[in-house]
Amino acid sequence: MTDITIIGTGNMARGLASRAIAAGRSVQLLAHEDKAKAEALANELGSGVTTGVLGDSVEGQIVIPAVYFDASKAIVSQYGEALSGKVYVDITNPVDFSTFDSLAVAAGSSAAEELQKITPATVVKAFNTTFAGTLVSGEVSGQQLDVLIAGDDESAVKAVSDFASAAGLNAITVGPLRRAQQLEQTGFLNILLSANDDLPDFQWNSALKFLPAV
Amino acid sequence: MTDITIIGTGNMARGLASRAIAAGRSVQLLAHEDKAKAEALANELGSGVTTGVLGDSVEGQIVIPAVYFDASKAIVSQYGEALSGKVYVDITNPVDFSTFDSLAVAAGSSAAEELQKITPATVVKAFNTTFAGTLVSGEVSGQQLDVLIAGDDESAVKAVSDFASAAGLNAITVGPLRRAQQLEQTGFLNILLSANDDLPDFQWNSALKFLPAV
Repeated sequence: MTDITIIGTGNMARGLASRAIAAGRSVQLLAHEDKAKAEALANELGSGVTTGVLGDSVEGQIVIPAVYFDASKAIVSQYGEALSGKVYVDITNPVDFSTFDSLAVAAGSSAAEELQKITPATVVKAFNTTFAGTLVSGEVSGQQLDVLIAGDDESAVKAVSDFASAAGLNAITVGPLRRAQQLEQTGFLNILLSANDDLPDFQWNSALKFLPAV
Repeated sequence: MTDITIIGTGNMARGLASRAIAAGRSVQLLAHEDKAKAEALANELGSGVTTGVLGDSVEGQIVIPAVYFDASKAIVSQYGEALSGKVYVDITNPVDFSTFDSLAVAAGSSAAEELQKITPATVVKAFNTTFAGTLVSGEVSGQQLDVLIAGDDESAVKAVSDFASAAGLNAITVGPLRRAQQLEQTGFLNILLSANDDLPDFQWNSALKFLPAV
């Protein structure tokens, strides 16, 4: 029995797997094609990580594809009913990279909602506003990272929130899955700041945070 | 010669006028109908504030209607060409209050862009992610408030950015006016957190902040 399956071996996979291990969770790491990449990242992470490639049985109760939106849609299609009963965490920001000026989902929808239409898994939106490097370290400038979570299923949302909290992050449950519309626009804004050459303070290592008054 | 005209006498007018005075700017405060309300707020603010009512000549080079989106459209219609040459700061979040579930502007647009279509003023988006109370105090939890700014005209954006900086705030110029689409969805998210009874930490006095890594 594995707690969390992470698909992908890039920077976001590294960040999420780092947090999973910090939370004491067992991790299955599936490479897209090259199992050696999963093994290399597993070795780097240290312990409690099993490896495989896309197409292998998904062992985790929580599945986090650390891939772009289009790749996530392909994963959902590939696994089909095998994802039934799983919590599928959508971390994507579906930026239209041809223009870098808008999101590539229809107005009034979101990547998370589009994925929910095509999978029997329970989709939860989370981790789309946290950059990879900040997940590796688990904080920014000594402050706890916010993880914004949206979903329609209470127990699925709680599973993701519990994971984030156990990983030392500040989990904020925002509302139903359609709130992903706001989370993705906010994630896009976060990306735009780092992509903006006029803003040298933002170098893909900043963090969006909602500071409560104290 | 007045620096900034603020239209409205509510909480956001109080917050913005407080910052304007902190920045050493002269302020014209126009009440919607009741000049006594403008006078009361001016007395509270202390000094350098002149008062009037909507319809009076707009003296400020920067005009900030501290009102809802529909009221801002009405102001633009009322003043027409008299706003030519002014910097018009759109602080609104055009929430559909009948559902509290989405924004009430067309997809691919924003309140700021809609206003720009109907005014000869130069519209700049700003202050839509900062709650009134945080503007009065100028900070949250000892941290500088972020003011996110978007606009197409460089000198107009600079005028707003200079004001925010002089007021002790952290001005971040995000990009062109169409970035208001992201700022308004992010502002809506900020509102949704405070409106959510399940999140007792958020009571209309929190602040959205992009923390750079240090």
